[in-house]
Amino acid sequence: MADPLFEFLLRQGDNTLVLGHRISEWCGRAPALEEDIALANTALDLIGQTQMWLGLAGEVEGEGRSADDLAYRRDVWDFRSLLLLEQPNGNFGQTMMRQFLFDAFQVQNLKQLTGSANERIAEIAAKSLKEATYHLDRSRDTVVALGDGTAESHGKMQAALDLLWPYVGEMFICDDVDTALVADGIAPDPSQFRAAWDDTVNNTIAEGMLKIPEGDFTHKGGKNGVRHTEHLGHMLATMQFLPRAYPDASW
Amino acid sequence: MADPLFEFLLRQGDNTLVLGHRISEWCGRAPALEEDIALANTALDLIGQTQMWLGLAGEVEGEGRSADDLAYRRDVWDFRSLLLLEQPNGNFGQTMMRQFLFDAFQVQNLKQLTGSANERIAEIAAKSLKEATYHLDRSRDTVVALGDGTAESHGKMQAALDLLWPYVGEMFICDDVDTALVADGIAPDPSQFRAAWDDTVNNTIAEGMLKIPEGDFTHKGGKNGVRHTEHLGHMLATMQFLPRAYPDASW
Repeated sequence: MADPLFEFLLRQGDNTLVLGHRISEWCGRAPALEEDIALANTALDLIGQTQMWLGLAGEVEGEGRSADDLAYRRDVWDFRSLLLLEQPNGNFGQTMMRQFLFDAFQVQNLKQLTGSANERIAEIAAKSLKEATYHLDRSRDTVVALGDGTAESHGKMQAALDLLWPYVGEMFICDDVDTALVADGIAPDPSQFRAAWDDTVNNTIAEGMLKIPEGDFTHKGGKNGVRHTEHLGHMLATMQFLPRAYPDASW
Repeated sequence: MADPLFEFLLRQGDNTLVLGHRISEWCGRAPALEEDIALANTALDLIGQTQMWLGLAGEVEGEGRSADDLAYRRDVWDFRSLLLLEQPNGNFGQTMMRQFLFDAFQVQNLKQLTGSANERIAEIAAKSLKEATYHLDRSRDTVVALGDGTAESHGKMQAALDLLWPYVGEMFICDDVDTALVADGIAPDPSQFRAAWDDTVNNTIAEGMLKIPEGDFTHKGGKNGVRHTEHLGHMLATMQFLPRAYPDASW
């Protein structure tokens, strides 16, 4: 097994990188100026968190790779992000539903990580938690407002939830990497977040007059890098173009 | 001015490369199996022609760049393709309309180039002309069939023609590069193809019960590389990903 700490840090950084890039795709295209700016700010928060997670990952690896190297010079099979996050934006409601489903998880995750035995991780988690808490407030409000909005917005939000639901289970998988870090007091067992997450999500979905889909099948293979969806490769082609084309460029 | 012969060869090769890549995007997605195979074959023809044009361009340049280097390691501002060809595929009818508008030009162009004072160019043109003639037969038939088809197909073909019309004029611009090659008997003046092209296009459009849009405004800047549309950069991000990510890879 690869170094569990390095793997864990890649997972954290790849989650924020992939979601951050997806959100940045809205820049200049959101349905209202206020939303456009809010989405761009969310993207910036997530990319900032990526800088910290992947920066630490590079240090831990000890082979001289920077956060930029890890973000821009790995190919799809080396990414450790959740499949949920690489799914295309779809419409604005779908983007906000994806955001909400992840935010509700990420707040739990970061809260636990603030107590990590690894001080650097605890510090990054504390900084990130403030932002994630704000993101959750926002995405939660939007899910409720659009779910309990017009017939059209309601329909779109239910369709988004149905579409994304088979991807939520991957967030709670506890594998060998997680187990190793739990043993060292570095990271929590993500399966333990499920109850609190269900609580937040069930309440919000009910308040938005939406219905949780039936079934608990989950796609997986993103977090452990075994198999990403086709969308990540296309995203990387765009995201990595500049540093791929100009590998030694600097400002 | 850059070497006119090199510029001219880039223009030929970039036209077939950009259109070939666009057409290849249909692979596995066309509305019928027969059309899917036909489009993939058209793409292969165009990429094959690209290999010849850019291969010769690399020889003429004399700096050791191969056809692959020219295709995969130039950025958007170094491309010399017509703006028409980088436009997104849209629906199947729109793709076939773009194909027809170019094929009708390209057959004229290649016919003239078979008499080039440069033997290598004459050879490439002769090989390409057979394929281009077949492409034109096919795209012409499709434009007529869909134009004079159902109300829906007619509407889509007229919309495609309206959308693409402001890009056709660039094909017939004769600039300093063309003038230099005309003087050496290497290439024709493209403005002289307009009458024959109008003839083919007017007849086909009329037979398809469609209307030529009014106005002769034309976008330009692709052929001379001054300004491409935003679509080309996104296309290159995908098209060039593999050789950009793995610059020294070989089979």
